[in-house]
Amino acid sequence: MRFGVNFFPTVGPADKSAARYFEETLHLAVLAEQLGFDHVKTIEHYFARYGGYSPDPVTFLAAVAARTSRIRLVTGAVIPAFTHPVQLAGKLAMLDNISGGRLDVGFGRAFLPEEFEAFEIPLDESRPRFEEGVEACRRLWTEEDVVVEGRFHRFGPVTLLPRPYQVPRPPILVATAISPESCVAAGEKGYGLMLVPSIHKPEAVQELLTLYRKAWADAGHEGQGTIQMTYNCYLAEDGDEARRLGRLYSERTNQVMAEAVASWATTRSEGYRGYEKIAERVASSDFGRQLEQGKVLVGDPDDVLALLAGIRGRFGDVTISLQVISGNLPPEESERTLRLFAAHVLPAM
Amino acid sequence: MRFGVNFFPTVGPADKSAARYFEETLHLAVLAEQLGFDHVKTIEHYFARYGGYSPDPVTFLAAVAARTSRIRLVTGAVIPAFTHPVQLAGKLAMLDNISGGRLDVGFGRAFLPEEFEAFEIPLDESRPRFEEGVEACRRLWTEEDVVVEGRFHRFGPVTLLPRPYQVPRPPILVATAISPESCVAAGEKGYGLMLVPSIHKPEAVQELLTLYRKAWADAGHEGQGTIQMTYNCYLAEDGDEARRLGRLYSERTNQVMAEAVASWATTRSEGYRGYEKIAERVASSDFGRQLEQGKVLVGDPDDVLALLAGIRGRFGDVTISLQVISGNLPPEESERTLRLFAAHVLPAM
Ligand SMILES: [Ca+2]
Ligand SMILES: [Ca+2]
Ligand SMILES: [Ca+2]
Ligand SMILES: [Ca+2]
Ligand SMILES: [Ca+2]
Ligand SMILES: [Ca+2]
Repeated sequence: MRFGVNFFPTVGPADKSAARYFEETLHLAVLAEQLGFDHVKTIEHYFARYGGYSPDPVTFLAAVAARTSRIRLVTGAVIPAFTHPVQLAGKLAMLDNISGGRLDVGFGRAFLPEEFEAFEIPLDESRPRFEEGVEACRRLWTEEDVVVEGRFHRFGPVTLLPRPYQVPRPPILVATAISPESCVAAGEKGYGLMLVPSIHKPEAVQELLTLYRKAWADAGHEGQGTIQMTYNCYLAEDGDEARRLGRLYSERTNQVMAEAVASWATTRSEGYRGYEKIAERVASSDFGRQLEQGKVLVGDPDDVLALLAGIRGRFGDVTISLQVISGNLPPEESERTLRLFAAHVLPAM
Repeated sequence: MRFGVNFFPTVGPADKSAARYFEETLHLAVLAEQLGFDHVKTIEHYFARYGGYSPDPVTFLAAVAARTSRIRLVTGAVIPAFTHPVQLAGKLAMLDNISGGRLDVGFGRAFLPEEFEAFEIPLDESRPRFEEGVEACRRLWTEEDVVVEGRFHRFGPVTLLPRPYQVPRPPILVATAISPESCVAAGEKGYGLMLVPSIHKPEAVQELLTLYRKAWADAGHEGQGTIQMTYNCYLAEDGDEARRLGRLYSERTNQVMAEAVASWATTRSEGYRGYEKIAERVASSDFGRQLEQGKVLVGDPDDVLALLAGIRGRFGDVTISLQVISGNLPPEESERTLRLFAAHVLPAM
């Protein structure tokens, strides 16, 4: 298994200044490289404490690229529905070059109604815009004289500059909630998958992975594909202390998420079935039950090794992105989690 | 006078890989800070060798921010017509925070037909989109619960995250070709001006500056405003050698620009009167005459000091952005220009 760090801010100006947020996360990103982690990831969100400090993951990752030399840089995810493909492909190609080919591009559909409203995009167009945008980026990276004749964009022939560093292009991953079609499509196309297992039943995740791996193999791709899973992670030398703090930070994160999804109570979209209950699901989420079900990596290092053995048993050798800052914890505690993980967990995995 | 460095790439894949371009320019940016320069600037262009390696100035400047601690970071310019204001204001606010408040935001209208075609924006909308976009960014940085009800964007109320580091916002500059209205508007609003004096008669530039400074003073702003001017700059210990190389690099730059503006021969737009002759003007541009007219900073350090005395006499204490990489010269020569400038010119200014 491989392990990286996902920076998902859950703070606003009343909690922490953005300058301090970036100073802390840049420090943790450099530390993650020194400690042997695989990747640094960050998200694209707007307006809310739920991710809003990171409207452009590329800007943050370019700063990380300039301070590091080995660790991979992952967008988790960028949203093609909100950005013209020429701009999205262009800035990602810049980052791929600035980092010497360390970029993995995760693309997502987004799901917060306020974001779609600000960009004046109907929620119902989210899936076709996602598909058209990913395909346009892929072609802009790999082809010359590209002509796009889509439903949302029509342009060309153009040849993107700069060309990506990686040949033929940066690896693509697709962020998905629970759509079997998306998983099959990702496998067929040779794209990776990004999942958040804590919001699903393990059996449902297993089913998705089986579909994905079968589609991957059927299409004749080498290997087994790439699966990145995000887990909240809080470690301490003492397991009870870790669980006490883990509960606090998880509950704070849920509170921030509850604010962000509140408008789903009055929003409906064909492309987001069941989202009208998302606020309820967040509100009823229980830390103790999540821990029992192996949906959070919280405890002392031995506890976390046991939790990871469970994950490996259920899902196989996946790549895990550790959320070590969500919940607005003191940065020393995020650093402790990374150091304990690197000292006791990485060598055993 | 203050002096910075403008990175305007004029290379494509056949000339230099993008990875090498960014490695060289990041090195020069760090050197510029060490040598006491005021700012690092870069541009937004697409597809052509003329600037196309830099579709997103924010991505490059974020990398520079992570490697430096004092030097200012300038977009020269970002194009609001091509980017949704929420994204533009958001990533610029990230950069302002990552850099600890070192951002100056230059906004431009763009002028290459191929860029407008790719973004599916009519050239004729360039000015109103520019104006609406700059104003939307200004409001997103300085106000909460912003409602935009413009011709091109309608959204809100939204409160941008992250909030900018600088209070009330990063300084704004407006890139202008030769429009008196733009200069007056910039002065009234307290914005800086970005000009490229080499494409105009000195008297025309003087007139613009007079209009700008009067509008600035009439509006009751403190000081005299900010004027940034871009000049090609090639120094060597030996003046003849500098002029020989300066001619070569200037002619190469003009060749690259000629390619980029070729489509103006068959393009017309109300908002760009006279641009049908831009290709001719570029083709007829003569290095010797430019040098005589003080439109390029080329020679040994004494020559350049004399040229700068002329500029100060004509335009006053402006800020100058030195183009030291345009023309695809070896990076050692760009570095020599910066080192000679810092050793002999900066202390005398
Ligand atoms: Ca078109
Ligand atoms: Ca205990
Ligand atoms: Ca234990
Ligand atoms: Ca709207
Ligand atoms: Ca000589
Ligand atoms: Ca001399």
